[in-house]
Amino acid sequence: MATGLCGSDVHYWQHGRIGPYVVENPIILGHESTGIVVESGSGVQGLAVGDRVALEPGVACNTCNHCRNGRYNLCRKMRFAATPPYDGTLATYYRVPEECCFKLPPHISLRDGTLIEPLSVAVHSCQLAGFMQDKSVIIFGAGPVGLLCCAVARAFGASTVVAVDVVPARLASAVKYGATHTYQMSAETAEKNAADLLAAAGLHNGADIALDATGAEPCLNCGIFALAQGGTFIQVGLGKPNLSVPVGQICDKEIVFKGSFRYGPGDFKLAIGLLDSRRIKLDDLVTHEFSFSQAEDAFKNVAGRGGIKSVIYGPDVDEEEARAILV
Amino acid sequence: MATGLCGSDVHYWQHGRIGPYVVENPIILGHESTGIVVESGSGVQGLAVGDRVALEPGVACNTCNHCRNGRYNLCRKMRFAATPPYDGTLATYYRVPEECCFKLPPHISLRDGTLIEPLSVAVHSCQLAGFMQDKSVIIFGAGPVGLLCCAVARAFGASTVVAVDVVPARLASAVKYGATHTYQMSAETAEKNAADLLAAAGLHNGADIALDATGAEPCLNCGIFALAQGGTFIQVGLGKPNLSVPVGQICDKEIVFKGSFRYGPGDFKLAIGLLDSRRIKLDDLVTHEFSFSQAEDAFKNVAGRGGIKSVIYGPDVDEEEARAILV
Amino acid sequence: MATGLCGSDVHYWQHGRIGPYVVENPIILGHESTGIVVESGSGVQGLAVGDRVALEPGVACNTCNHCRNGRYNLCRKMRFAATPPYDGTLATYYRVPEECCFKLPPHISLRDGTLIEPLSVAVHSCQLAGFMQDKSVIIFGAGPVGLLCCAVARAFGASTVVAVDVVPARLASAVKYGATHTYQMSAETAEKNAADLLAAAGLHNGADIALDATGAEPCLNCGIFALAQGGTFIQVGLGKPNLSVPVGQICDKEIVFKGSFRYGPGDFKLAIGLLDSRRIKLDDLVTHEFSFSQAEDAFKNVAGRGGIKSVIYGPDVDEEEARAILV
Amino acid sequence: MATGLCGSDVHYWQHGRIGPYVVENPIILGHESTGIVVESGSGVQGLAVGDRVALEPGVACNTCNHCRNGRYNLCRKMRFAATPPYDGTLATYYRVPEECCFKLPPHISLRDGTLIEPLSVAVHSCQLAGFMQDKSVIIFGAGPVGLLCCAVARAFGASTVVAVDVVPARLASAVKYGATHTYQMSAETAEKNAADLLAAAGLHNGADIALDATGAEPCLNCGIFALAQGGTFIQVGLGKPNLSVPVGQICDKEIVFKGSFRYGPGDFKLAIGLLDSRRIKLDDLVTHEFSFSQAEDAFKNVAGRGGIKSVIYGPDVDEEEARAILV
Repeated sequence: MATGLCGSDVHYWQHGRIGPYVVENPIILGHESTGIVVESGSGVQGLAVGDRVALEPGVACNTCNHCRNGRYNLCRKMRFAATPPYDGTLATYYRVPEECCFKLPPHISLRDGTLIEPLSVAVHSCQLAGFMQDKSVIIFGAGPVGLLCCAVARAFGASTVVAVDVVPARLASAVKYGATHTYQMSAETAEKNAADLLAAAGLHNGADIALDATGAEPCLNCGIFALAQGGTFIQVGLGKPNLSVPVGQICDKEIVFKGSFRYGPGDFKLAIGLLDSRRIKLDDLVTHEFSFSQAEDAFKNVAGRGGIKSVIYGPDVDEEEARAILV
Repeated sequence: MATGLCGSDVHYWQHGRIGPYVVENPIILGHESTGIVVESGSGVQGLAVGDRVALEPGVACNTCNHCRNGRYNLCRKMRFAATPPYDGTLATYYRVPEECCFKLPPHISLRDGTLIEPLSVAVHSCQLAGFMQDKSVIIFGAGPVGLLCCAVARAFGASTVVAVDVVPARLASAVKYGATHTYQMSAETAEKNAADLLAAAGLHNGADIALDATGAEPCLNCGIFALAQGGTFIQVGLGKPNLSVPVGQICDKEIVFKGSFRYGPGDFKLAIGLLDSRRIKLDDLVTHEFSFSQAEDAFKNVAGRGGIKSVIYGPDVDEEEARAILV
Repeated sequence: MATGLCGSDVHYWQHGRIGPYVVENPIILGHESTGIVVESGSGVQGLAVGDRVALEPGVACNTCNHCRNGRYNLCRKMRFAATPPYDGTLATYYRVPEECCFKLPPHISLRDGTLIEPLSVAVHSCQLAGFMQDKSVIIFGAGPVGLLCCAVARAFGASTVVAVDVVPARLASAVKYGATHTYQMSAETAEKNAADLLAAAGLHNGADIALDATGAEPCLNCGIFALAQGGTFIQVGLGKPNLSVPVGQICDKEIVFKGSFRYGPGDFKLAIGLLDSRRIKLDDLVTHEFSFSQAEDAFKNVAGRGGIKSVIYGPDVDEEEARAILV
Repeated sequence: MATGLCGSDVHYWQHGRIGPYVVENPIILGHESTGIVVESGSGVQGLAVGDRVALEPGVACNTCNHCRNGRYNLCRKMRFAATPPYDGTLATYYRVPEECCFKLPPHISLRDGTLIEPLSVAVHSCQLAGFMQDKSVIIFGAGPVGLLCCAVARAFGASTVVAVDVVPARLASAVKYGATHTYQMSAETAEKNAADLLAAAGLHNGADIALDATGAEPCLNCGIFALAQGGTFIQVGLGKPNLSVPVGQICDKEIVFKGSFRYGPGDFKLAIGLLDSRRIKLDDLVTHEFSFSQAEDAFKNVAGRGGIKSVIYGPDVDEEEARAILV
């Protein structure tokens, strides 16, 4: 029904590869998706034809050690939508196992439900950061994932959420999604930016947690300098191959630095729970909508960093239906 | 009675500072120490005059949030022996609170007891790495701390312990202290070294854990490339200010990278427990002994990387007594 | 300035002992207290004369293994206000170490600040239960601690909070403090009550978490039957010496059953953080106020289970000041 | 090839049911088993015909929330060998998914490999107890599972392992499998038994961990009284439906009480790793061997509590082959 465009979709479209994943044959892109169940297998018990669902785009093997240990995002046999050689969801029909379908809350449209996938990325990252109640959290990057991290951090009880970006308009958005403070990165050193950021947010002993949704070296460095002793840093799945890291700071402050990769057990369920209870709102995050025939324009729009999130409707989709909510 | 020399002592002696810690006035060095109780305060209950003890060299405030939360190594009011402006233990008498004194097992001499401090560093680092039973562990650096990490990893149940160094003689030592495999770093890339190391150790799916006791960029990079999905990397307190880190690998494999700083609650106690049960042996780790009047030679010996560990006896110490064991 | 009365105060007053703690000499009761700083030691840095503070009533030794490990509530040398032989806070002046003083948020009165101590009990218990986001939680007992557990569970993100009691009026209160559902225990078996409770709350697969703030055998049993596979049960510090427990259920469902004792590191700080951000409200929890000269009436009122919480003001306290908020 | 008999097999044979599991049709018993691969599916990669394997007897659905979360032992769709209505392994051929087959170490015979299943129970329980290095552990029951718990606790680094039973001959066995102390339960109260046990083992501050492999009320009570503040109690899967429990002790000492149910991710793998590294030895644990035609005698022998473990060979098995080791 609808698919949100992710930077990785656009990167494949432009460059034909992301690291070791190379597009060698024509591939269908798209993995932030919602649909309506049109048919289900004989063993499916929890879904009915007509159900509006969000799709978890990774199909794990479910039997390897990682899967059995509750870390299926590390499965080496994962078939992930729109990661070569596996086709994505920008298609009329798509087949997924039952465990990858999550019913949409009635007040979430098929259009906005496409945000559940990036919301699950944010949920996974925030969970890796540990207990957030009354903690101070810095979030680098105010694109879709960064904004959703702001929202999740607040829902998880963070008392201070500092959104960091270089673009003032994005910082303004962050306040709508839960940021209590914003900070515009300057051209100064990481130490100076960290000091200025902490002063601006009144965090005189450093921050408890930092999440980086940019992959940019200045952000990573600023974040580590800004952490308090014993702080936690989460790199939200966008790490460049190699970056200069203040390892001395990580040792002296006994920082935990974690990579976050996609999402794992319970993340989609929790993302939907946060929507269901309306502790997270997605209003106005979808800023651009495209019909299937306009798909190329959508890719161009994202490549040009237009708006927050662009959605492409599936072939022959009734856009009114896709925008509708049930309650 | 006896003090082992650490690289940090020698660094202060040569350079007068380590990062933000600057020697501005004459200072007594030494912090890997044993002694005999000569006097105790009226509230002391668990120690008697004449007790042979290992000293934990850091005196925490015990009341700040870090101390109360069980992470006193992060205490900002820590008074740590031989870290300016606090004097160290190369002296006739030294005063410490009761909680920093640990009775030596009877079969451990005052000389070898000086190794309990670096052993506690190894214990702390290995505990940060999590459950080690049947895991594969790579340890970079076969100096005193690296060797002790090998010993602790084995005592903690690691089935494979790969010691890595550039000096063959050090690798030969590692086998004595628990390494099941050794690997000599080459001038190749980190990826190539990682692949060769894994092949040599038969770890075809990558290693579960890596600990770096070198602070060297090639080791850190090799370690991260060598880790399996979901692996853990511990930087054992020697991190350079800035290093190039394969952050993309950390994300893709969802690696946890932790800094390890000194030691915390229970580490000295556990180090002594491992000695008490003879699951860790310290034989032959002290390779050089110096009387107090030869202290300068001891510093020169460590600066020249002579042997594994050098010990300086306190003023007027009876060296026979210092080498004696009780059982 | 003000002290809330706890069941334990009344128990000492009526029976002269609680388990091994026996009142052998006259003792001052009271431990849920607020005050105003009138004098501070030379080393105190974070407090000034005139500060309005909540008091943590337990003074730990700070140096034993439990204290150093971050579990000072287990300290065997704990001096706890109003636990014999230590005097409590129903006095004009009271001396506490700095780490036991917590500044009141400006919108919390000295009267309502007395609730921070039981709120910390609830915070501690809910933290022991683990990550609560989107979880279902059953809370037995709708007295002060149970009501505060409801509030904390909601603030911690629980999507379903079922308050359980035998008194309908108490259940009505629970809804004000965060309960999403209520259940009145019947005289049926634990299995039947559990089944009815789950049906009433729509929890068809069982509950994730149960907290018991009653110490009553039927509640404990109902809670364990109501838990899902892998659930967690917290006994909130009121356990009778011996109770019949469905241990078979604990095994079959691999339940974790934890005792919760008072509060530990960070609990008061987090309790105040929850008030500061207004995610927890204390309105109307103090239902009865007594001047110091009416103290006996206060004890009688609590003994007769009058209202939710009774507060006694200190000698010569200006009650207007005690009820005032600063913003 | 070989199947060890478990108390549950004998219970089904004698009583036709265990709790909710009722034998309604003829059923094949046996679930502690080894075999030789005679055929494998087309997708199987890690096994070859002729491989000697231990069998994990539970086949989980792999797709429910429990399975996906790394707790497949809680799967409600589990098909467990010899738990009605699923047949067990006392048969010529048995079909299992690849993830339930574990190659035997070459020095473990098919006969002794039947102990890997109860060893996995012990591994699971000891892992639930947390980090065991230098800890004191009390183990109630010196039958097969209790003895294996002793062995695992020692392999996990416990410095003190106290085996408890009422039968002196069993206690003598416990010393062979890792117990450092033994204690024969008396008819005294739980408090008295706990005090005597601690005195006998020199544990003056209480024990860190207790595991109960008996399900007997006096053991459970003794264990909880014997625990130190902050201790952990594991009920190893044999809990009676209801037992009197000293809940007051659980609260005052903030004890964690966990049920342990079968085994989960990594337990079989770790059990085999402990055998592979010879940190656990199984010598002399199989005390009785029966051919398939003598199966009834085997059941009678276990019912009469003869020896430690009885093994039944499969139909037409070459017993020499079953007892052989490869190296």
